[in-house]
Amino acid sequence: MSVSVTAYDDLMAFQRETEALAQVMGRLGWDQETVMPRGAAQQRAEEMGALEGVLHRRRTDPRIGDWLAGIDAGALDDVGRAQLRHIRRSYQRATRLPDTLSAELARITSRAQGIWAEARAAGDVAHFLPTLAEVVRLKREEAAALAQGGDLYDALLDDYEPGATAAGLGAMFDRMRPRLVELRERVMGAATPPAALHGTFPAAGQMAVAHQIATHFGYDWRHGRLDHSVHPFTSGSGADVRITTRVDEAEPLGCLYSTLHEVGHGAYEQGIAPDYALSPLGNGVSMGVHESQSRIYENQLGRSRAFCGWLHGRMADTFGDAGAVGADAFYGAVNRVHAGYIRTEADEVHYNLHIMLRFDLERALIAGTLEVADLEEAWNTRFAHDFGVAVDTPAHGVLQDVHWSVGLFGYFPTYTLGNVYAGCLNLALRAAVPTLDADLARGDAGPATAWLRENVQRHGGLYEPAEVIERACGFAPHEGPLLDYLDAKFGALYGV
Amino acid sequence: MSVSVTAYDDLMAFQRETEALAQVMGRLGWDQETVMPRGAAQQRAEEMGALEGVLHRRRTDPRIGDWLAGIDAGALDDVGRAQLRHIRRSYQRATRLPDTLSAELARITSRAQGIWAEARAAGDVAHFLPTLAEVVRLKREEAAALAQGGDLYDALLDDYEPGATAAGLGAMFDRMRPRLVELRERVMGAATPPAALHGTFPAAGQMAVAHQIATHFGYDWRHGRLDHSVHPFTSGSGADVRITTRVDEAEPLGCLYSTLHEVGHGAYEQGIAPDYALSPLGNGVSMGVHESQSRIYENQLGRSRAFCGWLHGRMADTFGDAGAVGADAFYGAVNRVHAGYIRTEADEVHYNLHIMLRFDLERALIAGTLEVADLEEAWNTRFAHDFGVAVDTPAHGVLQDVHWSVGLFGYFPTYTLGNVYAGCLNLALRAAVPTLDADLARGDAGPATAWLRENVQRHGGLYEPAEVIERACGFAPHEGPLLDYLDAKFGALYGV
Repeated sequence: MSVSVTAYDDLMAFQRETEALAQVMGRLGWDQETVMPRGAAQQRAEEMGALEGVLHRRRTDPRIGDWLAGIDAGALDDVGRAQLRHIRRSYQRATRLPDTLSAELARITSRAQGIWAEARAAGDVAHFLPTLAEVVRLKREEAAALAQGGDLYDALLDDYEPGATAAGLGAMFDRMRPRLVELRERVMGAATPPAALHGTFPAAGQMAVAHQIATHFGYDWRHGRLDHSVHPFTSGSGADVRITTRVDEAEPLGCLYSTLHEVGHGAYEQGIAPDYALSPLGNGVSMGVHESQSRIYENQLGRSRAFCGWLHGRMADTFGDAGAVGADAFYGAVNRVHAGYIRTEADEVHYNLHIMLRFDLERALIAGTLEVADLEEAWNTRFAHDFGVAVDTPAHGVLQDVHWSVGLFGYFPTYTLGNVYAGCLNLALRAAVPTLDADLARGDAGPATAWLRENVQRHGGLYEPAEVIERACGFAPHEGPLLDYLDAKFGALYGV
Repeated sequence: MSVSVTAYDDLMAFQRETEALAQVMGRLGWDQETVMPRGAAQQRAEEMGALEGVLHRRRTDPRIGDWLAGIDAGALDDVGRAQLRHIRRSYQRATRLPDTLSAELARITSRAQGIWAEARAAGDVAHFLPTLAEVVRLKREEAAALAQGGDLYDALLDDYEPGATAAGLGAMFDRMRPRLVELRERVMGAATPPAALHGTFPAAGQMAVAHQIATHFGYDWRHGRLDHSVHPFTSGSGADVRITTRVDEAEPLGCLYSTLHEVGHGAYEQGIAPDYALSPLGNGVSMGVHESQSRIYENQLGRSRAFCGWLHGRMADTFGDAGAVGADAFYGAVNRVHAGYIRTEADEVHYNLHIMLRFDLERALIAGTLEVADLEEAWNTRFAHDFGVAVDTPAHGVLQDVHWSVGLFGYFPTYTLGNVYAGCLNLALRAAVPTLDADLARGDAGPATAWLRENVQRHGGLYEPAEVIERACGFAPHEGPLLDYLDAKFGALYGV
């Protein structure tokens, strides 16, 4: 065994323990949001802080640098080189940040989330602004340390979407926005829009249908489970990938489509080649690709007319007429476009407009061309322009999302990037599986999930994000397929 | 601030992180036994192994030795000195064990548990013996490393019950055994023994009554929860102390009294002074004292005639006549003495005889005076003598308990020590709270739990185990009160 192979093996063994400990952190997060006793929050923060300290020391351990220097990458196969690429990136990021900055960021953001929640509840933007200004100041410092002279926002974005740039995303968003605003206006002017569901839908019935949906989309219960939480999420990698959903007895579609969204995230993690488990390749490769899976499951597949036919049958079995007479009316209700302030409640037509607004504002904050003091006004002006209504209260505007309070700058655009990727994958999938709609109409998502597993999910972190989409689709990802899909679907549904 | 105080503060800050990480390990254990997806077992073992590695490195970190050497204990108060006593003991034990031995023990015992389970299922003692011999060999090595020339068994016992000795326990057990055998024979010869409950008791009803019992005994739901598991257990310290129980629809008393047993363990952890949280004083001081709390809740309080009157009412509310007509018959069913092979199903009269058998055998194995090859015969001979029946199959005999397969030698006697302590505490509690039976008859365990919290639970690890019992009772603990209690209770109930 050569010296370089020994260094590689040692590095990978060390990394495997780190990945296992990172999984433990994920378990604590799951526990906190689902089953933890209410009075345990403060102690839990300390438990997670202690584990975070362990992880930080491991991620900045100088032995990683020594091992990396001692490896002859030429002696490795593709998988080995991809592992090294991830480890090198992560080590470089971790060691470029001064410990004091990491600690200060952790301290401020853990406090800021509480202050943001207070400000949102009170509708008091001013209460949050000094803290937000502090977060922005520290994130700019972080970006400067990471960017080494490059673009500040790109340095933050790189943590969520390696290879993406603000310039590239900005140009794409600028191409998308006029078409989306135009589609929105057409749809909102339709003469006979579909109606929402009405009725009461007992929680047990919603969870039973949610279980059926997950099963039909191939979610693996031997390596997962479905629970309630306030905000739905997916947690864990490898052999233990759990999803959650929320339940509102007046509105069942939130539960069902949140489930299907998380099934997409979960199927991605469950679909990664088992050989990659507890290695840097054993997680979804980026937020954008992750979101492409949740979005294609939720929207292009789950909100299709074909699948809605099958789902309407399950709703009728469970809830009688389900508040929508007939499968067509149910399909309309599932895809109802409605003006709304809240990103997380937005339909497919509005959703990306919410993201572009945030992207432009946070990019300006990090660039220093927008002051925190001017943020609310900038938000409200832009919202009125893109959505045609005025923000009525800060909880419906600049205070609605938790992201900025916890330091997530550069994260928002990956949602729309995920939608764009989902549009591309949908095009390629339908070409590869001509029976798709007939399958979905029977509730059989097997061929769709098999294609996604084979072409996207199993690769984990093996390829760069854009590369995995291009390999699956046979073309470089772009916004066209998503916009065409939205035009066709909502034009037909709304008769506009 | 003096140098010694700085060393103390540094040591305690380091220790606090270790305690927080130990709590994380507890969360993983809870998760594994209650909610973990079945297919996640192998990955979970690796996650726990990685965390165990972190804990081991912290517990043997040479800085602990430096800090301990730098502290002037004379400058500390009682609490500080007690903290140091725990840290010093734990550091000494951890550093006396060679890393290779710890690793080998971890490897063998994790394998041995599976082999034991196979052997038990197949009734094949020979399948388990080579592995058990290996475990015994390693435990003797461990004991030799720890004992430094002292008694081998004492060195193992010390991990569970600091200050106890095999000689002292052995002498006490030898005093107890003739009286227990004699009581057992009297009771089993009774003319009209009480009858068991008959009927079907739906799981939801059992869990509802179990919740009521826990609530009436002061279990704090803000800092805990109750779930199902195959084997009931308590997990966690400080602000997050969870309990589990099991449910058999044909036999509700197992669920209810397992719950009350775990409520005793849980109340102890929840009752420790909050100042001690995440410090060495923030856990129950020993297995024996822990078991004293679970046993007095379960038996001296929970199986009393007074509390059974209240509980019979809840059973009747939930299940109709509850299979026992009248509170007296219910009290009889709760305290029914029955010959049985299985320790965990044993009544108060038989239970300690099960322990003494195991104590004598494991002490001989560690001393080297009994060979593993002769273990089954020794078990069966002793069982026939003490219980008056022959073991019919190894799963009912030498293969029934998991303990030895996972390396728990020196643990069994703490169960009976807990019973002895519970007997002492019951005597003192009844003297201090003359209204106890009237309170329990109303389902009010408040005065009892308040006395136990004040006199035992809140101290956590502040005093040595026997010392905390002596302080609570006003006399040195001994077996007399337990034996007198058993004689009086079962003599009256069985009319013998």
